Amino acid sequence: MDNRELVERLLAGERRALARVLTRVEDGSEDKLREIVALLHPHTGKAHLVGITGSPGVGKSTLTSALIAEWRARGRTVAVLAVDPSSPFSGGALLGDRVRMQDHVMDPGVYVRSMASRGHLGGLSWATPQALLVLDAAGFDVVIVETVGVGQAEVEIASMADTTIVALAPGMGDAIQAAKAGILEVADVFCVNKADRDGADRTARELRDMQQLGHGDWLAPIRKTVAATGQGIAELADAVQEHLAWLDATGVRDLRRLERAKSQVREIALGSIRRRFAEFEGGDLVDELSQRVAARELDPYAAADKLISGIQG
Amino acid sequence: MDNRELVERLLAGERRALARVLTRVEDGSEDKLREIVALLHPHTGKAHLVGITGSPGVGKSTLTSALIAEWRARGRTVAVLAVDPSSPFSGGALLGDRVRMQDHVMDPGVYVRSMASRGHLGGLSWATPQALLVLDAAGFDVVIVETVGVGQAEVEIASMADTTIVALAPGMGDAIQAAKAGILEVADVFCVNKADRDGADRTARELRDMQQLGHGDWLAPIRKTVAATGQGIAELADAVQEHLAWLDATGVRDLRRLERAKSQVREIALGSIRRRFAEFEGGDLVDELSQRVAARELDPYAAADKLISGIQG
Repeated sequence: MDNRELVERLLAGERRALARVLTRVEDGSEDKLREIVALLHPHTGKAHLVGITGSPGVGKSTLTSALIAEWRARGRTVAVLAVDPSSPFSGGALLGDRVRMQDHVMDPGVYVRSMASRGHLGGLSWATPQALLVLDAAGFDVVIVETVGVGQAEVEIASMADTTIVALAPGMGDAIQAAKAGILEVADVFCVNKADRDGADRTARELRDMQQLGHGDWLAPIRKTVAATGQGIAELADAVQEHLAWLDATGVRDLRRLERAKSQVREIALGSIRRRFAEFEGGDLVDELSQRVAARELDPYAAADKLISGIQG
Repeated sequence: MDNRELVERLLAGERRALARVLTRVEDGSEDKLREIVALLHPHTGKAHLVGITGSPGVGKSTLTSALIAEWRARGRTVAVLAVDPSSPFSGGALLGDRVRMQDHVMDPGVYVRSMASRGHLGGLSWATPQALLVLDAAGFDVVIVETVGVGQAEVEIASMADTTIVALAPGMGDAIQAAKAGILEVADVFCVNKADRDGADRTARELRDMQQLGHGDWLAPIRKTVAATGQGIAELADAVQEHLAWLDATGVRDLRRLERAKSQVREIALGSIRRRFAEFEGGDLVDELSQRVAARELDPYAAADKLISGIQG
């Protein structure tokens, strides 16, 4: 099936078409993505993009599952893109807690997809923003991108999401670590999960103290949850909603979208230049131009200019 | 004085104009070189470009000076570009033996110029080929480029010269080292200098033995010299001349010129792409395009294409 037909079916709500488009996005070369992105792009921009990140063991999958249930109860459709930057293979550890995700398997208003990182420098796969675009175009109200908080991942997630939830667990020294890793800056909402354990209040307090040292216009609320029982999940969802309302009211959402578009355009352009650069040999054209240089018909700079124009096609 | 006038004076044989052009070539940014190269290029291609390389201590400067004297005696004008890739400063060690070069200071048929390497990876300065172009255009019959044989320097010299002389001294284990460094392949003529010392014959024999293991159509002759006394210099000059005759007779000179033009065009183009890449921000254009992406008027790939076209100006 060609991309156009596949995208039409996706827009019409066919889940199998969605799955196939995501596979093409994940497996395809950047060049092959072009058509899909061009077809989908006009249909995007409606979803609330929510990033969830945090160290291994804080219970992100359980939290995600609980949030899905909450948003479904509020009548919103939810897609999840689970990215595991620590693994080069997909379908992996991040959704190891699939039992909980299974709760939503029969719900047509929920779509869950795992994605491996083909990570650049411990970061997210370059296909991640494109996959979010696909889920956005597919019409989900909320699109969650979930990743283990390692390396560059949090920062990248934050750059892709409207609202970034940073999840922590008590007694793991996470608040300090988060500060060190510069996560305080990227969090729009903090979630201290496993709040039935000792030290949850202390973790929350530490977070608040550090946060007040320096923050912008939005002071990220801190919510305590026990995702396994659903405790505090409604309040977490409210906080996320409040953040969205703040984004819209202040115009920050548009600014972030613009920043996102900017970095995406720049990334694609750089990737394209980088690829041409890596492949740069010049082929027949360099032969032809060099002959003219050797014959003194053309100087080397003029030839180089012609070469650059020639390979830009 | 603008470049055009300066180049006209250079072509008319004014030494001061030559010096100023070389300074502009050496100091100027690559962009500033463009005009000079464009003006000079049609006047180049006549000189016999001779590379001289070898380890420190083999007596390259003395050898160069002796070769200058020999070529002058044969009625040919000579320019020398002495490149020191080991020093970031010009005017340096390579021509430390200036006393000998001084022999030629009053001779209008000789021009000597030192040049520092702003070396990329121990190699020659990127301005080196352009400086050779200047000396070629200035009308010298022979243009010598002399460098200490370290790192990539020999290979780069060989790629720039019609004829490459690799100088060695006896008893320095140079023959073996030369083999290890891959110099056997780049040498068109070997010179065992300081041949009045013990071991000169042995060095020459070792060279010959190793050389015969694998060589192309031209078996580089090995000449023994004592540059300080002039012994063997005429034979060395003859060997260089024979190589030039061979280059012309076989068409290899044209092939080398074509290769040289090719690598020069490619280097300039890559340098230009690299610079644009390093400076790549996109400026106002990325703002404008990103706004259209955020407004869904344009998809990010199309915007990236427009961005690339936009920054190519």
